[in-house]
Amino acid sequence: MTTYTAINLIKRPIAGEPINAELFAVVQKDIPTLGEGEFLVKQNYMSLDPAMFGWMSPDTNSYIPPVALGDVMRSSGVGEVIESNHPEFKVGDRVMGIMGWQEYFLSKGQGLNKITVPLPDETILSVFALPGLTATQGLFNVGKPKKGETLIVTGAAGSVGSIVGQLAKAEGLKVIGVVGTDEKADWIVNELGFDAAINYKSDDLDGQLAKHAVDGIDLYFENTGGPIQSLIVDRMNAHGRVVVCGLIADYDKEVPTPGPSWINVIKRRLTIQGFTMPDHFHEVPALLEKMTPYVMAGKIKHRSHVLEGLESAINGLNLFFTGENKGKLIVKL
Amino acid sequence: MTTYTAINLIKRPIAGEPINAELFAVVQKDIPTLGEGEFLVKQNYMSLDPAMFGWMSPDTNSYIPPVALGDVMRSSGVGEVIESNHPEFKVGDRVMGIMGWQEYFLSKGQGLNKITVPLPDETILSVFALPGLTATQGLFNVGKPKKGETLIVTGAAGSVGSIVGQLAKAEGLKVIGVVGTDEKADWIVNELGFDAAINYKSDDLDGQLAKHAVDGIDLYFENTGGPIQSLIVDRMNAHGRVVVCGLIADYDKEVPTPGPSWINVIKRRLTIQGFTMPDHFHEVPALLEKMTPYVMAGKIKHRSHVLEGLESAINGLNLFFTGENKGKLIVKL
Repeated sequence: MTTYTAINLIKRPIAGEPINAELFAVVQKDIPTLGEGEFLVKQNYMSLDPAMFGWMSPDTNSYIPPVALGDVMRSSGVGEVIESNHPEFKVGDRVMGIMGWQEYFLSKGQGLNKITVPLPDETILSVFALPGLTATQGLFNVGKPKKGETLIVTGAAGSVGSIVGQLAKAEGLKVIGVVGTDEKADWIVNELGFDAAINYKSDDLDGQLAKHAVDGIDLYFENTGGPIQSLIVDRMNAHGRVVVCGLIADYDKEVPTPGPSWINVIKRRLTIQGFTMPDHFHEVPALLEKMTPYVMAGKIKHRSHVLEGLESAINGLNLFFTGENKGKLIVKL
Repeated sequence: MTTYTAINLIKRPIAGEPINAELFAVVQKDIPTLGEGEFLVKQNYMSLDPAMFGWMSPDTNSYIPPVALGDVMRSSGVGEVIESNHPEFKVGDRVMGIMGWQEYFLSKGQGLNKITVPLPDETILSVFALPGLTATQGLFNVGKPKKGETLIVTGAAGSVGSIVGQLAKAEGLKVIGVVGTDEKADWIVNELGFDAAINYKSDDLDGQLAKHAVDGIDLYFENTGGPIQSLIVDRMNAHGRVVVCGLIADYDKEVPTPGPSWINVIKRRLTIQGFTMPDHFHEVPALLEKMTPYVMAGKIKHRSHVLEGLESAINGLNLFFTGENKGKLIVKL
């Protein structure tokens, strides 16, 4: 075999329309010959993440440049070094990092981290890669949780939200998760140990909040947006913190939904802070060190929704909008 | 003279209706006899502040308890000690602090600060009291300004906004002020030295922002709310900070206006933080120390809008909604 398959982005998605095959070109590329200091990774699994909608969009004000049209679609993945001219990456090493929608990846090592924990590839991508790093950075470094506080997390059965809630439980917080199906509600309460779940499709969202957040809300980890946003802010305690990590409900809207009035920001002296991982890639080793004990102690359960084959990534992205994915979306190559 | 006049709050204001005399009772009280450790202050000037709308409202979620019905209306003022059984407050000492809508105030010293700078009472109330403390806390401790950054402040001719802008200019920032009249625009640019002024009643707010904030906005000090809010957030730079200090445009609304979408909070990694001074009263000495050099160096100009007589306070509050006040509203007793 001298060629491999890659998928390039060739058109930008239109707000409100599903992702479809016309946005991409599936191409064959020659497997490259290694230069000095280079190594070749065979990618085994790659991750699908909501951040991809930002990467595909033309908005130049986003936190990292969009994928250029004609370039391979950006993604993180795990793989194995199969050939190496690099002193620190040996054949057989397992690595993770940004490799894109392709079967092989030529690297000089920049941005790739070696995997040293004895966990399967699926777990690495579902916990140690972007989801776990994002959850750890957002919860601890932005949210600054304190034992005994009440945390609410939206997208609570999602890849980031499920880890946020479990980390917060391990830290001694009361944790309420917001989800979109009863099955997910059941999973986060009965499998992950959340204190309560609220289905955002409920007719009585505010009543649900009143029932479960009896002492108000100190920490709000936002992954989704939607009408529950203002109701949650209305129930926040003085000096509450909002960690704004994702707004999946708004990514396909041309005009974003307004946010909560700032009246409560004054009255309750709230802090609302946004963050994205690319600002913190240099902190990945410290974040991994923070997260590893929780994972190795079995406190972070996860489930993966595995799609088969590189091209399944394209339609796979639409599962974020329908909410039909059951667990972290990953693609097996 | 054995009695003095005080004004009690007896009804709560109705959202959307002007403040009127029926909300208050003007009463005569006996001048009290001093107990051990007490002293009597004759109040000379008292301050009218937008925070008063919060203090009058029934909302129990506000940052300090509302004024109880039947109690004297809350306000800060300056006065002179005229009788004392207190070791640290002597007859003739000038003091400032929360004394309420009344001619005399009996104190044990708690919450009152001695005035040691040789400045007139009007200047003390317009700069050193709540407005200057609020501006100093919000700009430096919440906003963390850096030389060369662009700051925008709403309510820029107001008591807090005018000081925020002048402090920021003294720190080497580019300062844009948002005001509601051309006269105020002229004052902040030509008298206070702001770099630019925008009248929020302009037809082309976004064009005005584009013209004056050519490098985007790093720091947004919010005193008013209103439709310019979302336009400003749309022009904020990465890692921008929003200091939410006041929302005068919303204080008389039953349903507060929605805020900006949190999409930019993620994309630009913004921090939106509310604060109110009662959380920081213990820091007043440090704040005065920070502010004093700017004032004594003549860098903080101000103008006062003086109303005559205790009862003028009642209608005076409505000037906040009409924007007709020219400078810091104070009442001469």
